[in-house]
Amino acid sequence: MRFSRFLSSSKSVLGRAANIKDSYWLKTQHGFSTSGPDLVTDAGSTSIGRFANYTVFKGKAALSMKPILPAIRELDSRSSRVYRNGSVILTFWPAVGQRKYDWEKKQVFALSATEVGSLIGLGPTESCEFLHDPSMKSSLEGQVKKSLSISPLGNDNGYFINLSVVNNIQKTNERLSVPISKAEFTVIRTVLSYVLPHIMGWPQAMMRAQQPTTETKTSKSRPDPIFEWGR
Amino acid sequence: MRFSRFLSSSKSVLGRAANIKDSYWLKTQHGFSTSGPDLVTDAGSTSIGRFANYTVFKGKAALSMKPILPAIRELDSRSSRVYRNGSVILTFWPAVGQRKYDWEKKQVFALSATEVGSLIGLGPTESCEFLHDPSMKSSLEGQVKKSLSISPLGNDNGYFINLSVVNNIQKTNERLSVPISKAEFTVIRTVLSYVLPHIMGWPQAMMRAQQPTTETKTSKSRPDPIFEWGR
Amino acid sequence: MRFSRFLSSSKSVLGRAANIKDSYWLKTQHGFSTSGPDLVTDAGSTSIGRFANYTVFKGKAALSMKPILPAIRELDSRSSRVYRNGSVILTFWPAVGQRKYDWEKKQVFALSATEVGSLIGLGPTESCEFLHDPSMKSSLEGQVKKSLSISPLGNDNGYFINLSVVNNIQKTNERLSVPISKAEFTVIRTVLSYVLPHIMGWPQAMMRAQQPTTETKTSKSRPDPIFEWGR
Amino acid sequence: MRFSRFLSSSKSVLGRAANIKDSYWLKTQHGFSTSGPDLVTDAGSTSIGRFANYTVFKGKAALSMKPILPAIRELDSRSSRVYRNGSVILTFWPAVGQRKYDWEKKQVFALSATEVGSLIGLGPTESCEFLHDPSMKSSLEGQVKKSLSISPLGNDNGYFINLSVVNNIQKTNERLSVPISKAEFTVIRTVLSYVLPHIMGWPQAMMRAQQPTTETKTSKSRPDPIFEWGR
Repeated sequence: MRFSRFLSSSKSVLGRAANIKDSYWLKTQHGFSTSGPDLVTDAGSTSIGRFANYTVFKGKAALSMKPILPAIRELDSRSSRVYRNGSVILTFWPAVGQRKYDWEKKQVFALSATEVGSLIGLGPTESCEFLHDPSMKSSLEGQVKKSLSISPLGNDNGYFINLSVVNNIQKTNERLSVPISKAEFTVIRTVLSYVLPHIMGWPQAMMRAQQPTTETKTSKSRPDPIFEWGR
Repeated sequence: MRFSRFLSSSKSVLGRAANIKDSYWLKTQHGFSTSGPDLVTDAGSTSIGRFANYTVFKGKAALSMKPILPAIRELDSRSSRVYRNGSVILTFWPAVGQRKYDWEKKQVFALSATEVGSLIGLGPTESCEFLHDPSMKSSLEGQVKKSLSISPLGNDNGYFINLSVVNNIQKTNERLSVPISKAEFTVIRTVLSYVLPHIMGWPQAMMRAQQPTTETKTSKSRPDPIFEWGR
Repeated sequence: MRFSRFLSSSKSVLGRAANIKDSYWLKTQHGFSTSGPDLVTDAGSTSIGRFANYTVFKGKAALSMKPILPAIRELDSRSSRVYRNGSVILTFWPAVGQRKYDWEKKQVFALSATEVGSLIGLGPTESCEFLHDPSMKSSLEGQVKKSLSISPLGNDNGYFINLSVVNNIQKTNERLSVPISKAEFTVIRTVLSYVLPHIMGWPQAMMRAQQPTTETKTSKSRPDPIFEWGR
Repeated sequence: MRFSRFLSSSKSVLGRAANIKDSYWLKTQHGFSTSGPDLVTDAGSTSIGRFANYTVFKGKAALSMKPILPAIRELDSRSSRVYRNGSVILTFWPAVGQRKYDWEKKQVFALSATEVGSLIGLGPTESCEFLHDPSMKSSLEGQVKKSLSISPLGNDNGYFINLSVVNNIQKTNERLSVPISKAEFTVIRTVLSYVLPHIMGWPQAMMRAQQPTTETKTSKSRPDPIFEWGR
């Protein structure tokens, strides 16, 4: 079943890549919603049911980004609380021929809110690196190390996004690299800036703003001092 | 019918242009909602039913921008998927006299998400160009070539937006040019930054954030590691 | 009736100004929701029923900003259209004593979307000016001329916002000036950037994004070519 | 009861801090939703029922930010008004050992909209300071003075956020200091820019934009002149 899904997905990736190749005279595509990138979510999470992503297909690999929402717990009718933060999932998969990408060889990296902040705040000549252990707290802790690095292409032309995965269990050391143009990075910065408050659960806290009360205190221009009189 | 609509539309454009000319002492107008610009959508798409645009009327041509939403497909009660990305439609039409514009001679260009990123990320001295073949995948493929270029006016005064359309069928080669002031470009950059996540379908993916679950796991500050344990 | 409202309003402005003076050790207040500023809307518009503003009280005058939404017309169950654009209303009123402001002497200026773009795009050393004739298209056309100018305070310390109103009917020539700190201008730039798409009616055009269809076309990564095949 | 909550909270802080320490190889954590930070709201306010925050744990202290919404009063079915502005609450609490923080010793500071503007507009080499008297208008007025200062770490590496609280009643003078990395400050700037219009109540004013009227006036490209004809 999973295999058949992989077939259909890689077929559609191939088909669409070709399709786009013709329709644009550009070297990158975007905004795909292949069943491919969604397999990550299907496998890894039930916390999101609606799929959106941004995918770029380059010569040696493809990169897709998608948001994962935080998990919110209702405490009572009036309150709720984030019990698991959201993230932005980066999925890389290698090219295995012209406009062919091998979905089975995909590698994923989940950016936290602070890592998203690091990415969207990156200056044109700056770079950053994040290190994760995906199997932490499991019997495999320390066996797999992932490193994501973002470095400038130079002349304000965009960035290289590199993922390296050292797997001591499978004795593998993989490296996937995707060049991101300035235009693509502007899209990434814009959608990640939009998505950042959402993966942190802030819009929920804002929801009550939509429900005016009928209290009748007099207006005050500053926060109620009791907020600052904590002890 | 279409003809009558064109008449009413060009009448209203003329009427309003005059009207504005008096009300502002400025050389540009904006935010028109003429039936003119909407004909594009009426003709070209059923994927949007609510009309918003931003239009500037200049000496030689008028330019209007409007968002086209992505088409989303429900997969089941909990999930959906983008099956056609949205875009931002630019519509140009030439002046045929003082404050008169010929809607029948309009030309349209649809910006993809990455092209919108290129536009909103443009530095004061930078320029960009996009090439499209609107009849790709049709019997007319390669017969029509459209080129949109954006170049600075100089001294941080805004940009020139040029559309050239070479049509080998009709043996025509048209060029439409609209100067955009810095203030107008700030409006364009602001609304396109707002609209970019929407044409990519990300707000839908965010919708579930409004629906807290009642699960009771303990809080975690990082994404569930399973997200990164893909294979 | 109007007079009594003025009394209560100026009383509340005075009362609160004092109240704030004590609560902050700062020279500016904000976010008032006095009945004062709302009189503008009460008098001038029925197109907004919910009041939000940002008000700064300075030595010689006070300045309040508030958004006016566009008026939208339903065309049918699936479509609507902006038939009057929104704006941002600036209201100035002079000080008539320490922390006393005379609401009866207020002057208002309505910023269009492009004028908002000019304001939010203003560089630290740039300035801009807008000229309006509020009585255009009326018997009083040309009798009143309003000029709003925004100029830097220097050293990236904020801006001076000046309104001059020449009224040939009342033979008056009034000038109101409010210095805006960099922090206050950051608030203004942030809320006006947020509000700009709203006064242009773009969020309505985005509403359908919340309603996935059940069509089953195959995914496409680019806008439907028909969008670009307009004639 | 409050004591037990403190225990559970500090336990969870400790547990999670450790947990994160392992999962990231980074020196900061974020986005906690401990019952700790929420005690502030529980104690200080009933105006928000949904919890979201952003917390950084550093060597000498932890800092958490959360939004407090404005209180809105319905005037009638069509209108409402902000009668108390929202704010952003900063909560500091000191470290009492490695990854141990004493919630009982917390100190809070409520940022107004203009203070949020000052923070998000801060240049890489700029600093700012705010002075509050939390007991103003009470019998304790003048007895407690709080000072929040934000100063650059240098080399565009982020900022130091310092809170000093001089309490003449308890004869105490406390100082809490938290270094914020550039990535963390980008998160803070992004979520506070998102939240600023909300704490000012502007989204409510925007709500009617979602409700098109059925009026049939002709379109106008500029605000109705009556808006500018106030007297």
